[in-house]
Amino acid sequence: MDLWKNYSNEQLLNLKESCGKAYAELKARGLKLDMSRGKPSPDILDMSNGLLGTLSSPISEDGTDARNYGVPTGLAECRRLFSELLGIPEGLIIIGNNASLELMHNFYSRLYLFGTLGNEPWSKLNSVKFLCPSPGYDRHFAVSNAFGTEMIPVTMTEDGPDMDEVEDLVREDDSVKGIWCVPLYSNPQGVVYSDETVRRLAQMKTRAKDFRIFWDNAYGLHHVFGENSIADIFKSAAETGNEDRIYYFFSTSKITFPGGGIGLAAASPANIAEQCKHISVQTIGYDKLNQLRFVRYFKTAENIRRHMSAIGDMLRPKFEIVLNMLESELGGTGLVTWIRPKGGYFIGVDTMEGCAKAVVALAKEAGATLTNAGATFPRGVDPKDTSIRIAPTYPAQDELSSAMRLFCLCVKLVSIDKILSERSA
Amino acid sequence: MDLWKNYSNEQLLNLKESCGKAYAELKARGLKLDMSRGKPSPDILDMSNGLLGTLSSPISEDGTDARNYGVPTGLAECRRLFSELLGIPEGLIIIGNNASLELMHNFYSRLYLFGTLGNEPWSKLNSVKFLCPSPGYDRHFAVSNAFGTEMIPVTMTEDGPDMDEVEDLVREDDSVKGIWCVPLYSNPQGVVYSDETVRRLAQMKTRAKDFRIFWDNAYGLHHVFGENSIADIFKSAAETGNEDRIYYFFSTSKITFPGGGIGLAAASPANIAEQCKHISVQTIGYDKLNQLRFVRYFKTAENIRRHMSAIGDMLRPKFEIVLNMLESELGGTGLVTWIRPKGGYFIGVDTMEGCAKAVVALAKEAGATLTNAGATFPRGVDPKDTSIRIAPTYPAQDELSSAMRLFCLCVKLVSIDKILSERSA
Repeated sequence: MDLWKNYSNEQLLNLKESCGKAYAELKARGLKLDMSRGKPSPDILDMSNGLLGTLSSPISEDGTDARNYGVPTGLAECRRLFSELLGIPEGLIIIGNNASLELMHNFYSRLYLFGTLGNEPWSKLNSVKFLCPSPGYDRHFAVSNAFGTEMIPVTMTEDGPDMDEVEDLVREDDSVKGIWCVPLYSNPQGVVYSDETVRRLAQMKTRAKDFRIFWDNAYGLHHVFGENSIADIFKSAAETGNEDRIYYFFSTSKITFPGGGIGLAAASPANIAEQCKHISVQTIGYDKLNQLRFVRYFKTAENIRRHMSAIGDMLRPKFEIVLNMLESELGGTGLVTWIRPKGGYFIGVDTMEGCAKAVVALAKEAGATLTNAGATFPRGVDPKDTSIRIAPTYPAQDELSSAMRLFCLCVKLVSIDKILSERSA
Repeated sequence: MDLWKNYSNEQLLNLKESCGKAYAELKARGLKLDMSRGKPSPDILDMSNGLLGTLSSPISEDGTDARNYGVPTGLAECRRLFSELLGIPEGLIIIGNNASLELMHNFYSRLYLFGTLGNEPWSKLNSVKFLCPSPGYDRHFAVSNAFGTEMIPVTMTEDGPDMDEVEDLVREDDSVKGIWCVPLYSNPQGVVYSDETVRRLAQMKTRAKDFRIFWDNAYGLHHVFGENSIADIFKSAAETGNEDRIYYFFSTSKITFPGGGIGLAAASPANIAEQCKHISVQTIGYDKLNQLRFVRYFKTAENIRRHMSAIGDMLRPKFEIVLNMLESELGGTGLVTWIRPKGGYFIGVDTMEGCAKAVVALAKEAGATLTNAGATFPRGVDPKDTSIRIAPTYPAQDELSSAMRLFCLCVKLVSIDKILSERSA
């Protein structure tokens, strides 16, 4: 297609009329479509229904009664299974309850309350800043926001956060204390951090001694288009003695069940020792029966990978609906750009400047809910108002097609008004 | 028996010899007995094995898919069941994960990080003090200790904390911010707070506007000797407009499984609204499948009460072994005193001054582990060194008999030395 900004006013008004008619027709259908949250669909959840079955024995391999108190870092066989899956020594893994977000929040909270490894608690400092590659995960930013951390947006590229920006920010300023990262299939763009990005994050010089990378490997096994992988950040950090810089998180929320999965954290020996000390004050142990259910059901890392490959097969057609529709309806128009995601749970679309909110509002009016425009930026403010997150995993394929048809119409309608209003201005 | 302090040196030395011989015999058996922690025994855990069965459907009564994200305050049917059980409106209940200790820790942590209802965060204050009725629950005190709170011991009476002491402490000092309470069957003495104690706690004037009572109803259904109950502290607090003072906690750790139960918190509407705001940043929802398992298994509050009555029948003989042995071996000797517990999980015994640590050490030497002497006091320091906690729930009855026989011998041996050394001093 041609660049719409080169169209005449008349051409645009004609397009506006035909799109407006199509929009009205869709709206009249009283659709109720949701592309707002990264939730697994019921058929994906069904893939793990074996976990709802009977737990034949509550006794773990070393004789621990999983029904009783104790073992705050998790059952040995559960730590070993995740060690095998993630390539992290089992002694450096802590198995939590269902939400890795809760683990991140707790680690973050301890930095404020107690400080880490002899450094001042952040609650005692006048200024604490955190780097927020944007667009990014809204719930990460919500944690920083709740603690009153100053959030500094960092540009996202196809290789991850813009590392020149990051290195500039951390080099001289002691109050820049950390960064949020979703290194594999970033939320929402599905970007895979390059080896060079991982290396620079791990090895860069930071003024703050207690700089922490919150490495949320949320989509570590969520391959959609090929099995991509990231470099081992622990190994890279160890080369320059920075292994304490990394807080690693993972969860099975989108492998099994968000409402009953397993979250985990991993870190250096010094960090894990410190966290264990804190955890032992907070709980006598997380839910060990859930750990046992997971291990008994999957047995091996290979089985988990196979399971995720099957889930990838279910997600791929949904991603293709979105990407094909974007390409066929908006490709070449210059109205939107997007990075083709390599996997994960989302597709990030950028509109023309100042259009994202209007597109989301117009779609909502016709019954399609998208993530709030701006939600993927710190404090929900996208300065250019261009970023929209599409979550294709929950709706059924036919609903997704309708929703995307509607979305593309909304982009066109809002963009036409934008172009026309700029010309008349 | 006579008061041993009235015995002659010769009588005492004779007793020492016979007790020493009996102790040596028991020691030679290589016993391995544990009366240290309040853990349910395997046969008590077996009572809830139905919970390990298949969850036939993951869909809740209102159509919520418990496998998926959401509902951070808990499934409606789960809140309703606990509402029925505890007599607290369901809208004021938040269902957490397995450990109520974690909920307490989180509530405590938020007071430090964010403050409550417009009051200054405690982390900004020069001094924060907490009242610790002692002997009390070591893990409560460990939370206060981790936050650097100054812990003030308060005397325990047979009616709960000494309320004259408490009222004196809270009246003028703005930095006295709260109190830890286990109101029904206190840990470790099994004391039931009198109605008057509950009323005074709820209605007393505190200088601190953000004074908080951590009301840990851990043993709310753990009747052993009759069905005792406590006054409704929310009702009492509401009479003087103090309902925001109460943070209520409960858990099923000792109803079903410590390693896979359900913890909950309850509080006033203003407190719950505030906590929900914080929780929504920390998690997208606790484990809802576990909530569903619990509700489907028990169905009604009446069934839970019946279940606890059966568990009470299993605990009673164990309590009787301990109490009968104390009475027959040490009653009237003046070597120990104890409050007869009305229920719960523990028996608190007081030795002569300066003897508790030595008794625990001597028992340990012969293979019987008791809770560390002093553990039930802030920072683990029992100023008079008299308090010992006996946890009778885990060992089998014959093991418990052996352990108690040994315990009584240790009390006698240590006390004889104490009396003799005081005479020679």
